[in-house]
Amino acid sequence: MATAENKQVVLQRYIEEAPKETDMAMKIGKIELKAPKGSGALLVKNLYLSCDPYMRGRMRDFHGSYIPPFVLSRVFSHLLDVPIEGFGVAKVLDSDNPDFKPGDFISGLTGWEEYSLIRSTWQLRKIQPDDSVPLSYHLGLLGMPGFTAYVGFYEICSPKKGEYVFVSAASGAVGQLVGQLAKLHGCYVVGSAGSSQKVDLLKNKLGFDEAFNYKEETDLDAALKRYFPEGIDIYFDNVGGAILDAALLNMRIHGRIAVCGMVSLHSISDPKGIQNLYCVVPKRIKMQGFLQSDYLDKFPQFLELVTENFKQGRIVYIEDMNEGLETAPGAFAGLFSGKNVGKQVIFVARD
Amino acid sequence: MATAENKQVVLQRYIEEAPKETDMAMKIGKIELKAPKGSGALLVKNLYLSCDPYMRGRMRDFHGSYIPPFVLSRVFSHLLDVPIEGFGVAKVLDSDNPDFKPGDFISGLTGWEEYSLIRSTWQLRKIQPDDSVPLSYHLGLLGMPGFTAYVGFYEICSPKKGEYVFVSAASGAVGQLVGQLAKLHGCYVVGSAGSSQKVDLLKNKLGFDEAFNYKEETDLDAALKRYFPEGIDIYFDNVGGAILDAALLNMRIHGRIAVCGMVSLHSISDPKGIQNLYCVVPKRIKMQGFLQSDYLDKFPQFLELVTENFKQGRIVYIEDMNEGLETAPGAFAGLFSGKNVGKQVIFVARD
Repeated sequence: MATAENKQVVLQRYIEEAPKETDMAMKIGKIELKAPKGSGALLVKNLYLSCDPYMRGRMRDFHGSYIPPFVLSRVFSHLLDVPIEGFGVAKVLDSDNPDFKPGDFISGLTGWEEYSLIRSTWQLRKIQPDDSVPLSYHLGLLGMPGFTAYVGFYEICSPKKGEYVFVSAASGAVGQLVGQLAKLHGCYVVGSAGSSQKVDLLKNKLGFDEAFNYKEETDLDAALKRYFPEGIDIYFDNVGGAILDAALLNMRIHGRIAVCGMVSLHSISDPKGIQNLYCVVPKRIKMQGFLQSDYLDKFPQFLELVTENFKQGRIVYIEDMNEGLETAPGAFAGLFSGKNVGKQVIFVARD
Repeated sequence: MATAENKQVVLQRYIEEAPKETDMAMKIGKIELKAPKGSGALLVKNLYLSCDPYMRGRMRDFHGSYIPPFVLSRVFSHLLDVPIEGFGVAKVLDSDNPDFKPGDFISGLTGWEEYSLIRSTWQLRKIQPDDSVPLSYHLGLLGMPGFTAYVGFYEICSPKKGEYVFVSAASGAVGQLVGQLAKLHGCYVVGSAGSSQKVDLLKNKLGFDEAFNYKEETDLDAALKRYFPEGIDIYFDNVGGAILDAALLNMRIHGRIAVCGMVSLHSISDPKGIQNLYCVVPKRIKMQGFLQSDYLDKFPQFLELVTENFKQGRIVYIEDMNEGLETAPGAFAGLFSGKNVGKQVIFVARD
């Protein structure tokens, strides 16, 4: 029975503000590369790990959320640590589960560590390696963020051809697909992002009709009026805060706002709050929060649509790939200052 | 051709803050009690006029709204003034329209004056006087506010039996019917209001399960946790502001918020804004603004349901009736400080 060293990323403390690299730490433990008999578990080697903004919610000591907080590092304990949990792509080394066998590739919740013993296997998805689709894309384009874009756009926004669509954090893991789906649907799409590099990608690689750097705009309301002289039918909100406030002023009658995430509120909460919510009444706006996990029955049709369009070159995807597990804490913290360009992924190991 | 004196209520100036009695003024003009040939108009005698919070939106000099601003009083002009426009119940004195004849009672948009020449007749509704239903109820229970309650509750909130329903401004023109519809639907209903008299009416006359005076609560979040230990499925929001913020914290997963009006924002805008909007994501909340006028095809079924339940004693309605046109400015201003108890109506004249 082989035992291996197992590097792990653990959470040091629960946090209130934006995550910092030092809120996490590297540990080195040992792991038996075996799925214990009767456990139904898989022993996997993690290949790629995903940095997703929602994980910040699990770094808080708050038990009323839809997912439990992470387990803190047990500094004074001799027990094995529980690493940060997140989506990953992994290769099965040993299996006590008849649905999986050594050599299988899976995508789903795993640990931020080199090897993981995964006991909860019902949400894992088996991946067929395909030369035309990078394995890591199962964490982005074909994973939870891509599915979030799909659900938010089609299920929450009920788009119609020719409508005006605004996407914030538009070059991010979710936003970049929202914009491309909207274009494929025949909409006019404008994205906002936080650097000229991202704006350039939106316009020249991701096919947005227009894009702007919100950090260069002193008046977001005026910026939106410039890009949407007719107003906005659909706002796909990935950030909340001041951009949401400006969007509310520019929504058209019967507009829809899909509230996917509020990165601005993941960090330091804004004492200003949202000022323009009153707009929802005269404009009859529907504003809806959603989680992709409520729509899993639609996952197969999402996968088919996006894979097909990707293979035919009608959808592209931008990843920001960091090399090595030890880069994960910094990369994760970077999400909250917009350091990443595209979907943030950590390369852990080759299979 | 009879000419009569015609007392009018006119708007003196466009306003930014809460309406004051002195923003309006009384004028005395003259009117021919005749519908000109070829005009298609009606000459009516106004019997009851309605004070509705939405009218405050027409007192602003803002042309992007769903209805135009009121015409200002022409102080330096010899032309006839245009009075404030609002819902009323009136009796037809003369008609140039084949659909109406002298003696008919109508409900719809008329002027804040003794006699009105109504040129736009397509939205008028003919009323069959019925001894069991007061004429003025066509401005409240069976009029726009009642229909707003019906649309908001059934169309926007999709209620299910047994759900927990919270209504703010619960004894108001809309709120009192929302609560009663919710009870008839088998929901648990709690209302908030701004005086102990209103709380008493909610509990002892309108059949709410519980009610509280929000002015006596130092912590609205704690108050809602007390009344909704299991959380809120449906929040029918008539006020916005701090109560909406507290409700967001107490919504259940897949909760629905019908945003009917934000009286708190009709007045002085709150520099705090809405702080807790981030709750819509993890709780998958749908928040939707609406206007009853988008659902007019449902008016007949509303009228049938509510009239039937009223006649059978399963629905009651509270009016706050002021006597005389000259009381209208003060009564209207009073809406924004919660002076009215129940639906605010102005009695103008007997038929």
